[in-house]
Amino acid sequence: MISEIITIGTEILIGSITNTNGPYLSRKLTDFGYEVRYHESVRDNYDDIRDAIELAMKRSDVIFLCGGLGPTQDDMTKQALAHALGLELVFDEETWNHIVNVSMSFSKKITENNKRQAEFPKGAIIIDNPKGTAPGCLLNYEGKQFFLMPGPPREFEPMADDIVENYLEKVAGENFVTSLLLVNIGESLCESILRKEKIETENVEINTFAKTGEVEIKLIAHAENPEDVPKIGKEHAMAVDRVKELFKDNLYGNGERDSFETLVDLLREKKMTISFAESVTGGTLATMITGVAGASDILKESFITYSNETKEKLLKVNPETIETYSVVSEEVAREMSEGLYHKTNSTYTVATTGEAGPKPSTNHEVGTVFYSIRKEGEEILGGKRLFKGDRKAIQYRSSKFILASILLHELGVHHGRK
Amino acid sequence: MISEIITIGTEILIGSITNTNGPYLSRKLTDFGYEVRYHESVRDNYDDIRDAIELAMKRSDVIFLCGGLGPTQDDMTKQALAHALGLELVFDEETWNHIVNVSMSFSKKITENNKRQAEFPKGAIIIDNPKGTAPGCLLNYEGKQFFLMPGPPREFEPMADDIVENYLEKVAGENFVTSLLLVNIGESLCESILRKEKIETENVEINTFAKTGEVEIKLIAHAENPEDVPKIGKEHAMAVDRVKELFKDNLYGNGERDSFETLVDLLREKKMTISFAESVTGGTLATMITGVAGASDILKESFITYSNETKEKLLKVNPETIETYSVVSEEVAREMSEGLYHKTNSTYTVATTGEAGPKPSTNHEVGTVFYSIRKEGEEILGGKRLFKGDRKAIQYRSSKFILASILLHELGVHHGRK
Repeated sequence: MISEIITIGTEILIGSITNTNGPYLSRKLTDFGYEVRYHESVRDNYDDIRDAIELAMKRSDVIFLCGGLGPTQDDMTKQALAHALGLELVFDEETWNHIVNVSMSFSKKITENNKRQAEFPKGAIIIDNPKGTAPGCLLNYEGKQFFLMPGPPREFEPMADDIVENYLEKVAGENFVTSLLLVNIGESLCESILRKEKIETENVEINTFAKTGEVEIKLIAHAENPEDVPKIGKEHAMAVDRVKELFKDNLYGNGERDSFETLVDLLREKKMTISFAESVTGGTLATMITGVAGASDILKESFITYSNETKEKLLKVNPETIETYSVVSEEVAREMSEGLYHKTNSTYTVATTGEAGPKPSTNHEVGTVFYSIRKEGEEILGGKRLFKGDRKAIQYRSSKFILASILLHELGVHHGRK
Repeated sequence: MISEIITIGTEILIGSITNTNGPYLSRKLTDFGYEVRYHESVRDNYDDIRDAIELAMKRSDVIFLCGGLGPTQDDMTKQALAHALGLELVFDEETWNHIVNVSMSFSKKITENNKRQAEFPKGAIIIDNPKGTAPGCLLNYEGKQFFLMPGPPREFEPMADDIVENYLEKVAGENFVTSLLLVNIGESLCESILRKEKIETENVEINTFAKTGEVEIKLIAHAENPEDVPKIGKEHAMAVDRVKELFKDNLYGNGERDSFETLVDLLREKKMTISFAESVTGGTLATMITGVAGASDILKESFITYSNETKEKLLKVNPETIETYSVVSEEVAREMSEGLYHKTNSTYTVATTGEAGPKPSTNHEVGTVFYSIRKEGEEILGGKRLFKGDRKAIQYRSSKFILASILLHELGVHHGRK
């Protein structure tokens, strides 16, 4: 099915907001076996919307119109669609009652303008919007499907899920979709390994998605004829196994949970605790952990020890070590994690020191991070790594790397790896 | 000038990456007085690219083609453009030498494929790409301007800046652009105030941009005829003054520096220090500060005190206070910031306690945050606030609110406000 996503809103064309609805829906549609060929964004302008609809009718089968369903005069997507297709707009009493109820529960005022939200092109099937007042709709017209959807992502995304699950025509045959999640490896390295190993076959498509320090590899296969299902299913499973084997040192999951959630769950399950003594990462490690529900079971206390004095006072780092090796050194990181262990008795104690830039304070390059990870007081991982980017990127990447290393270490113990 | 931005790349259509080039360039063009009417994204497909170009020629004056300038067979933007316009591709010796040099300095292998990157439609003006191997180009054709630009944002963005500054035809007349930065106010409230006060005039356009907890208000005016410049300039200045007055309690800057940078600079300048005792915010406050260059001058040490024991041990919170009022209370926040002051002697000591969810541990609603801000040991701000969103959003929003409150407090002292 050739699909097209048209986003309507002047705020997109002036760069005031970034279109995240397009990618969201695109991923869903691709997984579902649809081919998204066009994204188009136009202003809140009657003629532009109508032109976009007329163009889409010529080139696409399933057309999504996002935005412009609100109550103001700027919102004219339904009007433009009705006009382009020569249909009249019909007032829907039930929708109107719903809008009145929702608005009252939000203590919002209702005006005559809101009535526009209860009008739909004749023949449209109304799609509920549990997160807002503007319902969506589906219109079947001359073999084409039009979906009208609200613009705000928190309304758009649940409706996109609903549409893919309940309203779209299934493509003939069966879809095989597997998602694998990796840490501590870059997307481009992933891609070049996949290309070199020629995992992709005629039937199995492989896409990689970079997610700030994580990579998702998605394997999609589609069997159009029932008799091909076993063969293509097997081809898909073999490709999945090969990818798993290729990236076994970086693989941490195949679900929807990110690496932080996976780590917090794992440590909770094992009744372990963690504390940080952060210099260069400046609180980023703690924030990554405390951002996950249940973090309070594993993190009781954590420290940002930016100055030398604090390192000495709080973590009992020897001033001579700082003087001899400088504060940005493996030796200092090691004493920090040791002092932290004596202070907190946490299962994992982790220390960082380094150069976040923009100017280095020692003779180390900006991006240098020394880290030391202890488990029950014994150093299990540590050393020096160089991270690219600006200050925040260095903090983020080094923290992500450290937590991913702990996750892989715990999984390895589990899975019989190192 | 009617402009159109065409983004080329299958990875966009499958949702693997989000198109950030479109919004980036859109903002630049809007500030420059251009009208961006269309964003379109198409796959790495010869026919689709050519169709998009032919369509753009009918409806736009200035057309940006982004992506598809790489060395592989997937990269075919220049070929499609040359074909659409009936032009031949010409090999540019100088560009080729540059590509060879750049590749060698990156220790990258050069293949025969790379030669594609040195070919341009006949008549094109080559635009340097200091960040990568693929140069861009400008082609003037039958009154239309075509700009070909590389897809990766770190190459795209500097080239966008260069193009707007050096290659675009100026719209006739003069542009007035002012940007005002606000904190602790939502974009929708901003907008409704602006609408109610009718600040926008026929000549002065006002756009708001939401940036995670900050709002940028941009006032743009354009005087096409030289004789209108004084009048329109005055109209613009008056609108700026009215907006400044309307939002004086939330205004912190009018440059490019965000509120965190502004706060760190201000505290450094005044030789002040800051420390945090974070429970509900879990390190987010410290991370916001340490993400700014120069943070080490103002933050020496900071604590994440998640458990009751740590609050008692480290900050000397009275166990009875926790028992009487519960750990999520104004009283506990106040004792935390006090204990922190005695421990660190920092100019500002800030404490948070609350419910980040997903389930509350006390009888307070998820999103409840108690905070206490002391300056030289005296509580100057504090109390209870409710924040919306999931766990991370509550941590982020409450931290942002607190730092913005400190910033506005310090600015107020400066500016004669409370």
